[in-house]
Amino acid sequence: MSRLLLNCDMGESFGSWTMGLDAEVMPFIDCANIACGFHAGDPGIMRKTVALALKHDVQIGAHPAYQDLAGFGRRSMAYTAAELQDLLHYQLGALDGICRAQGTRIGYVKPHGAMYNDMMASPEQLRAVVHAVATYDARLPLMLMATRDNREAQAIGDEYGVTLWFEAFADRAYDNAGRLVSRQLPGAVHHDADTIVRQALTLAAGQSLIASDGSALYLHANTLCVHGDNASSVAAVQRIRNALNELQA
Amino acid sequence: MSRLLLNCDMGESFGSWTMGLDAEVMPFIDCANIACGFHAGDPGIMRKTVALALKHDVQIGAHPAYQDLAGFGRRSMAYTAAELQDLLHYQLGALDGICRAQGTRIGYVKPHGAMYNDMMASPEQLRAVVHAVATYDARLPLMLMATRDNREAQAIGDEYGVTLWFEAFADRAYDNAGRLVSRQLPGAVHHDADTIVRQALTLAAGQSLIASDGSALYLHANTLCVHGDNASSVAAVQRIRNALNELQA
Amino acid sequence: MSRLLLNCDMGESFGSWTMGLDAEVMPFIDCANIACGFHAGDPGIMRKTVALALKHDVQIGAHPAYQDLAGFGRRSMAYTAAELQDLLHYQLGALDGICRAQGTRIGYVKPHGAMYNDMMASPEQLRAVVHAVATYDARLPLMLMATRDNREAQAIGDEYGVTLWFEAFADRAYDNAGRLVSRQLPGAVHHDADTIVRQALTLAAGQSLIASDGSALYLHANTLCVHGDNASSVAAVQRIRNALNELQA
Amino acid sequence: MSRLLLNCDMGESFGSWTMGLDAEVMPFIDCANIACGFHAGDPGIMRKTVALALKHDVQIGAHPAYQDLAGFGRRSMAYTAAELQDLLHYQLGALDGICRAQGTRIGYVKPHGAMYNDMMASPEQLRAVVHAVATYDARLPLMLMATRDNREAQAIGDEYGVTLWFEAFADRAYDNAGRLVSRQLPGAVHHDADTIVRQALTLAAGQSLIASDGSALYLHANTLCVHGDNASSVAAVQRIRNALNELQA
Repeated sequence: MSRLLLNCDMGESFGSWTMGLDAEVMPFIDCANIACGFHAGDPGIMRKTVALALKHDVQIGAHPAYQDLAGFGRRSMAYTAAELQDLLHYQLGALDGICRAQGTRIGYVKPHGAMYNDMMASPEQLRAVVHAVATYDARLPLMLMATRDNREAQAIGDEYGVTLWFEAFADRAYDNAGRLVSRQLPGAVHHDADTIVRQALTLAAGQSLIASDGSALYLHANTLCVHGDNASSVAAVQRIRNALNELQA
Repeated sequence: MSRLLLNCDMGESFGSWTMGLDAEVMPFIDCANIACGFHAGDPGIMRKTVALALKHDVQIGAHPAYQDLAGFGRRSMAYTAAELQDLLHYQLGALDGICRAQGTRIGYVKPHGAMYNDMMASPEQLRAVVHAVATYDARLPLMLMATRDNREAQAIGDEYGVTLWFEAFADRAYDNAGRLVSRQLPGAVHHDADTIVRQALTLAAGQSLIASDGSALYLHANTLCVHGDNASSVAAVQRIRNALNELQA
Repeated sequence: MSRLLLNCDMGESFGSWTMGLDAEVMPFIDCANIACGFHAGDPGIMRKTVALALKHDVQIGAHPAYQDLAGFGRRSMAYTAAELQDLLHYQLGALDGICRAQGTRIGYVKPHGAMYNDMMASPEQLRAVVHAVATYDARLPLMLMATRDNREAQAIGDEYGVTLWFEAFADRAYDNAGRLVSRQLPGAVHHDADTIVRQALTLAAGQSLIASDGSALYLHANTLCVHGDNASSVAAVQRIRNALNELQA
Repeated sequence: MSRLLLNCDMGESFGSWTMGLDAEVMPFIDCANIACGFHAGDPGIMRKTVALALKHDVQIGAHPAYQDLAGFGRRSMAYTAAELQDLLHYQLGALDGICRAQGTRIGYVKPHGAMYNDMMASPEQLRAVVHAVATYDARLPLMLMATRDNREAQAIGDEYGVTLWFEAFADRAYDNAGRLVSRQLPGAVHHDADTIVRQALTLAAGQSLIASDGSALYLHANTLCVHGDNASSVAAVQRIRNALNELQA
C-alpha cells in the first residue's frame, strides 16, 4: 500500500491581502498546491510560499486557474482547448521560474476551482489539461478527483503518458457515483474532527466509504485534500497527519 | 570582430489587439525580444511568437516589464529590488514555460520600457536585474544599452557572472555621453533609410559615430535594436540585414 | 414610422493598442456603443471617444461587458445575477463619470459580446440586465437583438419600466426564428455592399426579410448594428447612411 | 468651531479577500472613504460598503487610486496629468454608479496611497486632482493632508472653486513643518490609546500639537483619519468618537 499524500492549497494570498494559515499547516502536509497568479498569488507570495515548502520539505505543485482574480478562479469560463493549454504552460512556467531561483522545481499539477470542476465534467477539457501537462513535462503527475470509476480519466492519462494522482476528501460526503454531495445539501460537509480523521484512515487503508445512499463506495485515492483556511481546519490536518503516521509506521 | 546581432521587440499584441508586423520582420532578425504578459503579450500570443521565432531560427529573449498593461510598461513604478526580482523570475519562467511546450527555451533577457530605462538610470536597479538573471540562469546574457563608458555596468555583470550584451540604435542620434538624444529635440530620430543603414554599418565595423555635439563617440555594441512597427521600419530592417550580410560575408 | 438608428461599437482600443476606425465612422452613425474598460477601452480612450461622439452629435451608449480583457469579453462567464448587476452599475457609472467631465451623459445601454449573447439566451440573465438598468436609471433604453418574437423580452422590459431598442443586422443572414445564422455556415455574412444596403432599407421600411429557409421574416427593429472595423465596413456604413437619409427624407 | 469629522478607509476587501473591520467601525465614523476598484474594492464590495454606510448614515467619499491592485496603490507611478484626471473621472463615476443604484451619491473625494502622497508632494499633481474634481462636480470637497501652511493648496482649491477638507492624524507624530514623522523613526506612531484620544481632542479643540522638535504646531483640520484595520484600532475609534461627542455636546 503506497502512502496517502496530504495536499493543501497554498499561496492564495494576493498583494496586501492574506488568505490561509500557510505557515501553520505546511509542517503537516506532503504536497503544496501553489497558486500561480491567475486566481490568487503574486510573484512575491509565490516566492515566499515556495521557500516555506522547501523549509518543510514539502513537494511543490502548480495550482493553475482561469484568469479571474476577482472571482478567485471559481467561475466557469468558456476557454477553447488551445487557450486552456496556453494558460497552463504560462502558469506552470511562471511557478517553475520562481522555483528555479530557489534551486527547485514543480513536482506535479493540480488545476484550481472552475478549471478543476470543468475538467472533471468534460473529457475534452481533461484531455486538454493532460495534453498541456504532457507537452510541458510528461513526468509531472496530474492531480484530479477520485470517483467510483476512474477508467475514462486513466485512459486519457495513459494516452499521453501522464501519471494521474487521484484525490479524495476526508471532510466531504460522497454520492454513490463517487462525486461530492453538493454543499447545498445537509450532511455534505463533515464538521466533526473524529469523523474526518476516521474517513481519512478509511481511505488510507484502502477500505470502502459509505456513500450518501448507504452503498459501499471504494475510491482509489493517492492523495487527500486538506485545508489550511483557519485554526480548526489546521488542527484537523494535524490530527490526520498523526493518524496517518501511526497507520503507516 | 563578432557579428552584430539584430534584436527586435516581438509578441506585443494582446488579446484581440494586434501590434507590430512580427511575421514580416522575423526573417531578418537574430533575436526576438518576446513580451511576457505584463506590458503586452498573452499566453496565446507568446505561443505563436515562439513558434514564429523557431521557424526562422531566431533566438528567443524574454522581454519582461513592469505590471502595467494599460501603460504598456512605459510608466516608471516604484518597485523594491525584491519585487523587481520576483517580477523577473515570474515572467522569465512564464515565457520559458511556453518555450518548453515547443521544445525550446529562452536565450537571453532584455527588460522593457520603464524597467529598461530605470535600470540604465540606477545602478541599484541594474544590480537587482542582474541578480535576478543570475539566480534564474546565469548563462543567460542580459541586454542593456551601450553608452560611452560601460564599465560600471560591466562590473555589476562580472560580479554576478552574467554576460552583458550592449545594444545600440541605428535610427537615433546620441549625445556625447553615449545616451540617446531626447525625442523632444530636433534630429533625435533618423528617418532617412540611408542614414540608418550607414549608422548600422559604422557600429558593425566598430567605428566611431558622430555625437550630437560633433565629437567622436565610440560605442561597444553587441546588438542593434531594430523595429517592426510598420512597413517602412521593416524595409529598413531588411536593408540593414543585407548590408550587414555583405559586410560580414 | 420612426427613424432606424445606426449604432456602432466604438472606443474598443486599449492602452497602446488601436482597434476600429472610430473617427472615420462616427460622422455616419446615430449611436456610439462605448466600451467601459472591462473588455476594451480605458479611461483615456473613453474620454476621447466621448469627445468624438459629442463633436458629431452622436448619442452615447454604455457598452458594458464581462471582466475579461484578454478574451475581449467574448467568453461566457458564470456570473450570478447580483454580480452581473454590480458589474453593470460600475461600468455605467464609470462611463457616466467620463461623460460628466464633458458635460454630457449616457443615453442608453448595450451589453457587449458574451454578456449580450447570454442575455439573449437566458430570460434570467435578461431580467438581471433590465433590473440593473432600471435601478441605475429607468429612462435609459436597453439595446438587444430583434428576433421573430420579442414578446418575452418586451414583458421583462415592461415589468421594470425599461424601454427596449431592438437591433437588427444588415450584413447577416437570419434563420426562421429570427436568430443570426452561425458564422460557421455558408452565407451567414453578407459581403456584397448592395445586399447589405438592400437589407438595411428593407428593415428601415418595416418590410419582411427572407430567412435562410426561404420564409418571410418580419423583424421589428429600432436600430441597425453597423461596423467600423475597416475601410470597407466604413464605406458600407456611409452607403447605408445615405440610403436611409433618402428613404427618410 | 465646526465639528471634526472622522474619516476611515473602507471597502478595501477584494474578491475573496477580506481586509478591515468595516462593519465594526462604520457606526463610529462620519465619512467612509470607499475604494473604487483600482487599488482595492470590486463592484460587489463597493455595493455592500455603500449599503453599510447608508445604514449608519455615514457620508460616502470616493477613494480613487493608481491602477495597481498588486501593489495596493502604494507604489508611485508616472502618470501624466491627463491620465490622472481620466483615472479620477472613471473611478468617481464608477462609485457614483454603485451609489445611484442605491439612491445616493458620493459626497467628497480622498485620493489613496501613492496618489495622495504624490499630490501632497507636487503642486502640479494637486492641481490635476483639483481640476479633475472640479470638472466632475465642483461641489465635492477634496480631502488632503493638513500641514503647517496650507496656503498653496488653498490657492489651488480656490482657483477651481473646490472646497478643501484638511485631515489630521491622531495616532501619528508630526515634524515642525506639519508633515508626518517617517514610520522608520522611533515615536512616529502613537500606540497608546490615551495619547491618541488626547491628540484627537487637541485637534478638535483647535489647539496646537507639540511637533517632534518640541515646537508648537497648529494644524487647521476639518477631519481626522482613523483606522478600522483591527480590533484595537476600532476600539480607539470608539474612544475618539465618545470623546468628541462629549467635547461637542
